Amino acid sequence: MYAKPLYCPQCGAGSLEYRIPPGDTKRRNLCGRCGYIIYQNPLMVAGAILEWEGKILLCKRAIKPKFGLWTLPAGFMENHETVEECARRECMEEANAEIEDIQLFSLYSLPHISQIYAMYYGTLAGGKTEPGPESSRTELIAPEDIPWDAIAFDVIRANLELYLEHGPGNGRVHTGTIAPHPGAGAQAENSA
Amino acid sequence: MYAKPLYCPQCGAGSLEYRIPPGDTKRRNLCGRCGYIIYQNPLMVAGAILEWEGKILLCKRAIKPKFGLWTLPAGFMENHETVEECARRECMEEANAEIEDIQLFSLYSLPHISQIYAMYYGTLAGGKTEPGPESSRTELIAPEDIPWDAIAFDVIRANLELYLEHGPGNGRVHTGTIAPHPGAGAQAENSA
Repeated sequence: MYAKPLYCPQCGAGSLEYRIPPGDTKRRNLCGRCGYIIYQNPLMVAGAILEWEGKILLCKRAIKPKFGLWTLPAGFMENHETVEECARRECMEEANAEIEDIQLFSLYSLPHISQIYAMYYGTLAGGKTEPGPESSRTELIAPEDIPWDAIAFDVIRANLELYLEHGPGNGRVHTGTIAPHPGAGAQAENSA
Repeated sequence: MYAKPLYCPQCGAGSLEYRIPPGDTKRRNLCGRCGYIIYQNPLMVAGAILEWEGKILLCKRAIKPKFGLWTLPAGFMENHETVEECARRECMEEANAEIEDIQLFSLYSLPHISQIYAMYYGTLAGGKTEPGPESSRTELIAPEDIPWDAIAFDVIRANLELYLEHGPGNGRVHTGTIAPHPGAGAQAENSA
């Protein structure tokens, strides 16, 4: 749930209180009638850096936010899938791209928007890609041609930079934190 | 949100429908009155293997589920923290344990209960620990004394086995999937 809840999802009462429940240490949305607690937790995103003959697969976004900017295929994890399955699914949905020789590449936290990005590295099977419904174009782009001024998200830029500097990790995994982009504020909270 | 929602958290109507929203591919809980979609996503857990003079910190659980069994300190990630901050907080809450030289050790998916475990490795600062409110005991245990028949969760057992076989990863991160324990079924869905 991304928006602030207004009614209790268990009893329907419009009596939510934002306070620390008994025995807890953090404020939650708590129903004043039935006592139900609405927990809100970070969202996991998974995606991949896909390489083919020295070029990297980038997708031009056909959806908000960051419409028209370039990104690596990635998206929110669904219930009942693994992190790796999510990365494979997103590559298929956004770029009709199959991954070979997949390996975990990085795990980054974005605490200002309560997201975690698990990015994989792999080979783009057969070099084949075409846009899915969320992409207007998909392209295999040489490192020197990456459109650095038109990358959609800081965490994607960070992963591209890490890959170009260090190559695939071969079992080594980069970790870190992405701070808010100056001027971005909390805007991304409900839109990313 | 762990329980099945019964009322719309945006308009309070008791008219949720479990179906595929327009433009989506998966069934969601969707409000038949206002159209609000309740997304439910996997939960991230973080914790740590803490070592001191060849022994590993284990906590005896003072809470359900798996009351009385042993575990590594770990727990659900909160909004607006990093994965590493979550691991540090859980070690402090469950075992009053500070981590030195922290590094990511493993990333495991538990798709049957829609959880992801990020486990770190580090040194237990000063070898100091005492139980927090969720633990009845905390102990530094030699590898040969680990109570394998009383470990609370399969993902904790897997991490202990990986650590004993391979040691700290020094940048290499183990990845994998934990399947349901025979007989456990979906019981853990709302209790873990």
